[in-house]
Amino acid sequence: MTDLIGLYEKLEEAAPGRVRRNQAELCCYSGDASQVKGLPDFVVLPESTEEVSRIVKLAGEYEVPVTPRGAGTGLAGGAVPVRGGIVLDMSHMNHILEIDIADLQVVTEPGVIQDRLNQALKPYGFFFPPNPGSSAMCTVGGQIANNASGMRCVKYGTTKNYVLDLEVVLADGSVIHTGNRCLKTSSGYDLSRLFVGSEGTLGIITKAVLKISALPKCRKLVMVSFPTPEAAGRSVSLVFAAGVMPSACEILDRTSIKVLLKLDPDVILPKDGDVIIFEVDGSENAVNESAELIAGAVAEISSSVLIIDDPDEMQAVWDARKLLGAAVSKLDNTKTRIYLGEDLGVPIRKLPEMIEKVYEITGDLGLQPMIYGHVGDGTVHVGQFIDVLDPESWKKLEESADRLHLAAVSLGGTVSSEHGIGAARGEYLAAQCGHAFDVMRLIKKSLDPKGIFNPGKLGLWRKKQRRTGK
Amino acid sequence: MTDLIGLYEKLEEAAPGRVRRNQAELCCYSGDASQVKGLPDFVVLPESTEEVSRIVKLAGEYEVPVTPRGAGTGLAGGAVPVRGGIVLDMSHMNHILEIDIADLQVVTEPGVIQDRLNQALKPYGFFFPPNPGSSAMCTVGGQIANNASGMRCVKYGTTKNYVLDLEVVLADGSVIHTGNRCLKTSSGYDLSRLFVGSEGTLGIITKAVLKISALPKCRKLVMVSFPTPEAAGRSVSLVFAAGVMPSACEILDRTSIKVLLKLDPDVILPKDGDVIIFEVDGSENAVNESAELIAGAVAEISSSVLIIDDPDEMQAVWDARKLLGAAVSKLDNTKTRIYLGEDLGVPIRKLPEMIEKVYEITGDLGLQPMIYGHVGDGTVHVGQFIDVLDPESWKKLEESADRLHLAAVSLGGTVSSEHGIGAARGEYLAAQCGHAFDVMRLIKKSLDPKGIFNPGKLGLWRKKQRRTGK
Repeated sequence: MTDLIGLYEKLEEAAPGRVRRNQAELCCYSGDASQVKGLPDFVVLPESTEEVSRIVKLAGEYEVPVTPRGAGTGLAGGAVPVRGGIVLDMSHMNHILEIDIADLQVVTEPGVIQDRLNQALKPYGFFFPPNPGSSAMCTVGGQIANNASGMRCVKYGTTKNYVLDLEVVLADGSVIHTGNRCLKTSSGYDLSRLFVGSEGTLGIITKAVLKISALPKCRKLVMVSFPTPEAAGRSVSLVFAAGVMPSACEILDRTSIKVLLKLDPDVILPKDGDVIIFEVDGSENAVNESAELIAGAVAEISSSVLIIDDPDEMQAVWDARKLLGAAVSKLDNTKTRIYLGEDLGVPIRKLPEMIEKVYEITGDLGLQPMIYGHVGDGTVHVGQFIDVLDPESWKKLEESADRLHLAAVSLGGTVSSEHGIGAARGEYLAAQCGHAFDVMRLIKKSLDPKGIFNPGKLGLWRKKQRRTGK
Repeated sequence: MTDLIGLYEKLEEAAPGRVRRNQAELCCYSGDASQVKGLPDFVVLPESTEEVSRIVKLAGEYEVPVTPRGAGTGLAGGAVPVRGGIVLDMSHMNHILEIDIADLQVVTEPGVIQDRLNQALKPYGFFFPPNPGSSAMCTVGGQIANNASGMRCVKYGTTKNYVLDLEVVLADGSVIHTGNRCLKTSSGYDLSRLFVGSEGTLGIITKAVLKISALPKCRKLVMVSFPTPEAAGRSVSLVFAAGVMPSACEILDRTSIKVLLKLDPDVILPKDGDVIIFEVDGSENAVNESAELIAGAVAEISSSVLIIDDPDEMQAVWDARKLLGAAVSKLDNTKTRIYLGEDLGVPIRKLPEMIEKVYEITGDLGLQPMIYGHVGDGTVHVGQFIDVLDPESWKKLEESADRLHLAAVSLGGTVSSEHGIGAARGEYLAAQCGHAFDVMRLIKKSLDPKGIFNPGKLGLWRKKQRRTGK
């Protein structure tokens, strides 16, 4: 039996005035943007690496879980304390410590909001490219812990490509730097990449050195509509083979288009068919050239091609697109969007097959899916919406998600392209990774022998794993 | 006492006719392109993953070291069996298994020569970007194991950015896939990045899935000469701050220029000063625009700017540059280039200071350095050449290398920017990484508890480590 009162007193010593334990406040930390729930025993709001270190040491001493939390925008329960214990709310560590244009890097605390970082970089003509849809809310720390990405990662790469160094508090309270401020190094194991995407299960990120890029001078959208979603999926390969690297490549199936037009009837979108929005960026000439190459590459399989270069019109399209995940309720306001089986990824070549599978599986169960996502990376977001008061609908939804995950794995894909595994998808990681999952377990055990960091995540604590033939 | 005769018989069963044990042949495997030496007991040339697995199992059973070897072009002894045992010569596993343009990837065995891979991709208009100077000889497997890079990595990133999946034989002979064929995934620990750059100390790479890029349409060189090497170092920051991302950014100090002009008096190079060659690539207009921006950014601190766009002339410059490391003997043919302290890296902003340090340290010791390298990444290659028959010169060279390594670390830099740690620099890894080095040791121990994989490398086995204040 853990001495919670004793622990509380010591936490108060470690972070005076910044420990929460009343039920109302704890409730605010019991969920994220997913369906996963779990109540913490304490919430602590550290303000320095030293405080984080002290808190982690206490957690080790008392053997209670520690779950770090950014803005709680995660879609897989990564920040939810499913085994109770301490939630570390990192939002007070929210300073941009240094903008170093000469070295192409910034130094930030983990609680900095992604868009705020980019606002600070804009006057210099630079940006931090990986842009999850939640960039207006999510923190840089959460983004790193999830290796979050977004629509521009097809060209710019995901968060892991931008992390030069992390300051991390380990399970014994000691502090390491996983890298350094060099743009290039080939010296020992790449610990930065190991911590990126580890979802708080190996250590607590307290500082990050991130690489930045020069803002492109010009952008243009090429909106292409197709007679079928499979044809849309096929177009991505054709564009790559034409030697174009779009800066975004978003699929919106006809249901998604319907939702967007309900949301804003004035937004410029093709009125029928399944659509891919290609964005190209760079110098003006490069952008024009790429737009023409895209139009040529898809000519034979598309129904219409529309080019937009007015900045306000482009912004309106992306603003609408950003709301899509939530706005699906516009279609039928008795139903709610539930994030389950929503973040599939497959090799580009398998996109048409994956899309067919989504319609087949959801059709079998009488569910109507909405398909959207960053198809240039092979990401297929599936929006499913149900009457949340109907237990039958929940059952169907869960069955659908289960079959979707296994279908992605059977196509050589991934059960999470960018949202992370968290508590929502842990049982599929072994199916996807095979024996490599055992290596993950070994690493976890060697770095966190008491298992205090974010227990219940990544399927590392599960006995039961969904296995496929692999 | 290991039963070497018993082991030999079992190795012969595992890889019939492909086990070598005569001294003359073993001698061929006792070195690489560095000064590190070590004689193996056996060399085995596996032809399949299954054979590698069987050999590794035998090594574990007999507790003898296993050192994988690509082409032996390494500059830090990574492929040298410094503790004897088995060398796995991977050169028979040299097939390109699949070129998959639609998915932007290739599947290769580890023994494929880098240039051969790029020759195979060229007809499709694609390439595998990370290009070490040894690309005509080095294998893809060695490149991955060292996270090798080269002059175009400033824009395109190093090898780790291109590895989607590795098939790896672990210490118990089991086989994992570290990733999959998706372009994007956020599912568990990034094992691919852990194995990239692990120099054969965690497992044997038997297959790789590598991302590829479209070949740029156009290139141009901007050759800028400066009154001092420090000014040359300073120019890199100015170019980045102007928003240009060159595809190469090579420094050649005045000694390097002298060597190159001795090698080929007709090659187009500025005749005096310290030089940076900026290369830009992309569409024709983007390239012209970037070249102008570079010329503008360096105008105030440069002595001359020369733009080359003739493909043959550009090729001649790069061909000469590739020979530089070896060609230094042209300067004084009684002396030989020794690779020690040759692969420093610092944050861009520290380049002028690092360059000054190189002259100061080598000057103190009466050595004449040649400085070159990919300064866009912060890489500073130091060429030192001595009379190898003079023991005093060796002592001075070793002292110089020691001081250079510690100087790089004290500037927040790295003791290996791209050549790897191997056996040559192991004692500096703890100085550079601090407590993170202990985490590397933990990971090593958890994945290779008997320590059979490439012992004596990365400083993991050393008791003595050079420590700085860190």
